[in-house]
Amino acid sequence: MSPRHSNAVAAETRESIVREAVQRASREGLEALTIGTLAADLDMSKAGVIGPFGSKEALQLAAIEAGNAIFRREVWEPVAELEPGLERLTAICDAWLAHLSGGVFPGGCFITAAAAEFDGRPGPVRDAVNSTLTLWLRVLAGEAKAAVANGELPAGTDPRQVAFELNSIAMGVNQGLQLRSDPRAVQHGRRAMERVLAPGR
Amino acid sequence: MSPRHSNAVAAETRESIVREAVQRASREGLEALTIGTLAADLDMSKAGVIGPFGSKEALQLAAIEAGNAIFRREVWEPVAELEPGLERLTAICDAWLAHLSGGVFPGGCFITAAAAEFDGRPGPVRDAVNSTLTLWLRVLAGEAKAAVANGELPAGTDPRQVAFELNSIAMGVNQGLQLRSDPRAVQHGRRAMERVLAPGR
Repeated sequence: MSPRHSNAVAAETRESIVREAVQRASREGLEALTIGTLAADLDMSKAGVIGPFGSKEALQLAAIEAGNAIFRREVWEPVAELEPGLERLTAICDAWLAHLSGGVFPGGCFITAAAAEFDGRPGPVRDAVNSTLTLWLRVLAGEAKAAVANGELPAGTDPRQVAFELNSIAMGVNQGLQLRSDPRAVQHGRRAMERVLAPGR
Repeated sequence: MSPRHSNAVAAETRESIVREAVQRASREGLEALTIGTLAADLDMSKAGVIGPFGSKEALQLAAIEAGNAIFRREVWEPVAELEPGLERLTAICDAWLAHLSGGVFPGGCFITAAAAEFDGRPGPVRDAVNSTLTLWLRVLAGEAKAAVANGELPAGTDPRQVAFELNSIAMGVNQGLQLRSDPRAVQHGRRAMERVLAPGR
């Protein structure tokens, strides 16, 4: 096998392990990821599973990165070409609700689950989840700020308040869908987001 | 030891195990509760820890019941004597925010964490978490319905929408406090709740 071919195979193996880890962690949590279970799922040896990462924590961090990439692809990339402001923020909300109800993660929003799981456990995994969410809240606040500058949201609107509220609503939708299988969750979320983005209407 | 005395000791032992389980589960999750860790924390034998419950699942369910009792004591009981409607719903929100920021659970809202952890794992623990949240959403919706009947919220307000939004906001506050140690989380939550309870203002 040429070195180049062997590198490609190694990258593919790593990717398939991370993909399986993301699926499993979205259902059962990042901490419940065990090398043994992943090895059984993938019909690999334990050494083969852990090899490309070196530690369980590195595998958890790789799963978070892969989860982030899925979120970016589903929620950010479709709207990235739009101008900053209310139109893009509304498009983000639509894509976000579609993402939450689309079932790409079998256990619901990956980062929300990881946040609840790791908020009380200091360390690199908690830091990675925190960075992800902080970045996303900044993106949302940036859009809200642009919407205020465009005159699309009332002057005096606090962009961080808008970001906080949209993120809270998405968490509520995720809980409604995942825990309570509530068919009205997306509709409730949509109405709540509309109210945040069209205050006074 | 008289049978009555021995029963009292047994009840006390059970209670101290559940108390420790609630504290630990709020930080690390219900699934991470291990009999061995609890035994070490409490300086007891593993058999002594599991004895009063019979299974880890029964202990998890007892921890959920104890967590619910704490929530009722902190959020519901202080307002129970008020008349149903906007005043009581506002008082609930105040007590809820105080509860979330008060640190009674070292790892933040116990049920939110359990919901994120168990939403993808069917079984009695998930059912218990679901029942708890469904009941609480019904309480909130009942207050909103009374507020509409009193003319304190606009006619046509969907009480379940109000319940969904208040619960979402509480989740956002919990995440802000626990994961991001955001000092503005409670203020954001209070403003968002005020907006839900005073639409158009």
